Amino acid sequence: MFEAAELGRKIPREEYEREVPRLRTALLQAQERLKSAPFPVLILVNGADGAGKGEIVNLLHEWMDPRFLLTYAFDRPSPEEAERPEFWRFWRALPPKGRIGIFFGSWYTRPILQRAYGEIKRRRLEEDLERIRSFEKTLVDDGALLLKFWFHLRRKDQKRRLEELESDPATRWRVTKLDWKHFRMYDRFRTICEDVLRRTSTGEAPWHVVEARDRRWQALTVGRTILDLLERRLAAPPPPPAGPRRDPPRPPARPGERVVSILDRLDLSRKVPPAKYEEELPRLQGRLNRLVRRAKEHGRSAVLVFEGWDAAGKGGAIRRIAAALDARDYRVVSVAAPTEEERAQHYLWRFWRHLPGAGRVLVFDRSWYGRVLVERVEGFARPEEWRRAYAEINDFEDQLVRHGYVFLKFFLHLSPREQLRRFRERESVPWKRFKITPEDWRNRARWDDYEEAVNEMIERTSTPGAPWTLVESEDKRHARLKILRTFCEKLEEEL
Amino acid sequence: MFEAAELGRKIPREEYEREVPRLRTALLQAQERLKSAPFPVLILVNGADGAGKGEIVNLLHEWMDPRFLLTYAFDRPSPEEAERPEFWRFWRALPPKGRIGIFFGSWYTRPILQRAYGEIKRRRLEEDLERIRSFEKTLVDDGALLLKFWFHLRRKDQKRRLEELESDPATRWRVTKLDWKHFRMYDRFRTICEDVLRRTSTGEAPWHVVEARDRRWQALTVGRTILDLLERRLAAPPPPPAGPRRDPPRPPARPGERVVSILDRLDLSRKVPPAKYEEELPRLQGRLNRLVRRAKEHGRSAVLVFEGWDAAGKGGAIRRIAAALDARDYRVVSVAAPTEEERAQHYLWRFWRHLPGAGRVLVFDRSWYGRVLVERVEGFARPEEWRRAYAEINDFEDQLVRHGYVFLKFFLHLSPREQLRRFRERESVPWKRFKITPEDWRNRARWDDYEEAVNEMIERTSTPGAPWTLVESEDKRHARLKILRTFCEKLEEEL
Repeated sequence: MFEAAELGRKIPREEYEREVPRLRTALLQAQERLKSAPFPVLILVNGADGAGKGEIVNLLHEWMDPRFLLTYAFDRPSPEEAERPEFWRFWRALPPKGRIGIFFGSWYTRPILQRAYGEIKRRRLEEDLERIRSFEKTLVDDGALLLKFWFHLRRKDQKRRLEELESDPATRWRVTKLDWKHFRMYDRFRTICEDVLRRTSTGEAPWHVVEARDRRWQALTVGRTILDLLERRLAAPPPPPAGPRRDPPRPPARPGERVVSILDRLDLSRKVPPAKYEEELPRLQGRLNRLVRRAKEHGRSAVLVFEGWDAAGKGGAIRRIAAALDARDYRVVSVAAPTEEERAQHYLWRFWRHLPGAGRVLVFDRSWYGRVLVERVEGFARPEEWRRAYAEINDFEDQLVRHGYVFLKFFLHLSPREQLRRFRERESVPWKRFKITPEDWRNRARWDDYEEAVNEMIERTSTPGAPWTLVESEDKRHARLKILRTFCEKLEEEL
Repeated sequence: MFEAAELGRKIPREEYEREVPRLRTALLQAQERLKSAPFPVLILVNGADGAGKGEIVNLLHEWMDPRFLLTYAFDRPSPEEAERPEFWRFWRALPPKGRIGIFFGSWYTRPILQRAYGEIKRRRLEEDLERIRSFEKTLVDDGALLLKFWFHLRRKDQKRRLEELESDPATRWRVTKLDWKHFRMYDRFRTICEDVLRRTSTGEAPWHVVEARDRRWQALTVGRTILDLLERRLAAPPPPPAGPRRDPPRPPARPGERVVSILDRLDLSRKVPPAKYEEELPRLQGRLNRLVRRAKEHGRSAVLVFEGWDAAGKGGAIRRIAAALDARDYRVVSVAAPTEEERAQHYLWRFWRHLPGAGRVLVFDRSWYGRVLVERVEGFARPEEWRRAYAEINDFEDQLVRHGYVFLKFFLHLSPREQLRRFRERESVPWKRFKITPEDWRNRARWDDYEEAVNEMIERTSTPGAPWTLVESEDKRHARLKILRTFCEKLEEEL
């Protein structure tokens, strides 16, 4: 990969000075058009020590309107970052639509360094690269323009650059002992980086390897690449907008035709008598409390997801968990319509931002599964969007599990008849009336569409590390105890 | 303060069960109306150990629509929180307009505990309470409905409650050694809390002391208090909306009338010749770099504010600072129009959220001073809003300085003639054209109004701990060197 960046190409000063004004003007115009475009731009700045990464970032700030550039530098993770999955800090810093983000250092830094120091084996590196490829695909599929720059220096050029920086009192500070240590490892770094770049130069997110020997060549190449790809992208037709589904509800299936679904297999007749419930509930809550406190001592956190039909009893079940915990230790995120900031990001962004630090319980009342449920059924997501969401969700949850969160997801199922009974009951009780909205009745009319979506969701996102717990919720007492028991058992298993 | 909460009042079960449905319905209706109201509600839940704070929070979640309740529990500060001013975590958690926030534990916890343990003297407690009063005034002045509940128990009731909780296996975990330790300090706590409550029960944010002996009395009192104050507030006429100023620009002052202002006293003829500039700039940048690295080693951070006339050279000065630093260590926040999330909060909220952790440099390109400059001149803030902003800003900056941030604020001044020259120059250079907008020309037409606002701002917000540095910016080279030098000297002084 690096041969083409070792040709010693240069740009004479006159040419540079003639070119830059044109380039700046065009970049500014493109940036202006980007402001109202439905996608973000993310520029990764990576490469050899002494290859002028900082100077390029400063130059981009000079050439473009810096008020709309969001630059993040990633060093070692802070304590806050270290308590969360590795990609949390990158998700947090993603630019919203219409903006340019510049990442100085990126998700490539840690794997490359660890491999160079021999801290991870080849197989672990492969896994890291696989994760990176899915992450980049997730961003690009959502429309992000991802520009990955790698600044390369030949061995002798790197040496000269470090020496030059060191000999000038004004720039001496830029060269550290670590830089020289890495220079002595030049060949090892070169081999590893070349391998990493080759394996992550995908169709949707190719690397741009830029020779960093001549500052003018480097600057113009970066500027022109950004301009070229941004202009091409702005000229491309936008994807068709998603909108409410206009097709009529499906005709009811003929009796003989109906395939038994996963939900059909649940035994909705399961019941717990009140007396047993009153006895069991405090026992399970006490057990849960002890377990959560033990988890906290070990710095372990839990993330729970609740999905289910309207009125299936998600809120009641969550309150029974909450009542067993110290209010300082848990948090319930009720997922409603996204805010303006959230709408300008990938749909997973607003869930990433809530991920807890060490020793906490986080409960999602509805979740990212909205993508493959309501957004699918109502047509708010295009078919290709919700279809690829299964893989994106599996990948996201895999990161939660690998990070060490105790992760559970519940689907609360009841019969349409019981749902109707609860809707009517809610409407008759003044302080429950607010729970019933016209939307609930609309969703109910689409029961079959939702059932199809739920079945497909369970099939495609029940993974060994993150299986669905299906909860028979025709009887609320049974549902609540089952959920508490499942949570307790999972904690016992993990601790 | 506590006598009225030691009367042993009770509510019989039948009355409670008759009342609760009415109360819940009314609370839900009020919460529904709040959603579109232009103010937030903040409920503080404080009081004795064993006084059922957690239960009250759970009950409020049951009585109201929990999707629009934002509950935060404040324990010891996390490392991230400890690296920032004490109030950062409270600001971060403030509910937006139309929502109810519940704070479990609050800014009262730390001062009360420290005083009870004898870790702080009476004088330090007074300072803490003074800070609390200004903070609460800031929130209430901005429209927040602040409800402060204190749950009180007599000594013997607290003892009984702790014993009851301990004797039940299901609730034993709720009682810790610390609770008993605090119980043995009952009298000391009582004296201190009573004193704290008396001193912070202000007209705008009075305490509601609630007897916690009888759960039903406690619950109904809290519910009714919230309902009553929320309904009264919803019925009150909203403040007149601010809007663009309609009064004509002021007539020019007659020559003899003009008062010499602070800005007039600046010597705009100061100049630095190019050769001297080329020599000085890298020297100062090297010095700054060494100082910032030293500050980082000590965990010290710097916060810089740049204000000034359009085209006065803020961006150029900031870039000269940035060029001396490692991109990993600094961050520039360009203050533009607030986002939806930011508009739903107090105007200082969006600045608080950016405050850095240890060892960083944060630069605000424009800042909270917009409140007393553009918002004043253009009429976006009502006169009473921008007038009280001086005190709010002084208090905010005092917190920055006390926390240990190296804090500097620069105002870049030039003559209207030089501004015009720069506007014209910018318009003639393609890649500078974006910097000039119709707004710049409009602001220029209001030069006298802005000058008045700037003078008053400098007068009212130049405090000993956070004085303004006025920068003669007729000559950019002079301005840049002065800013770099001031920053260096301030760092040297502080380290």
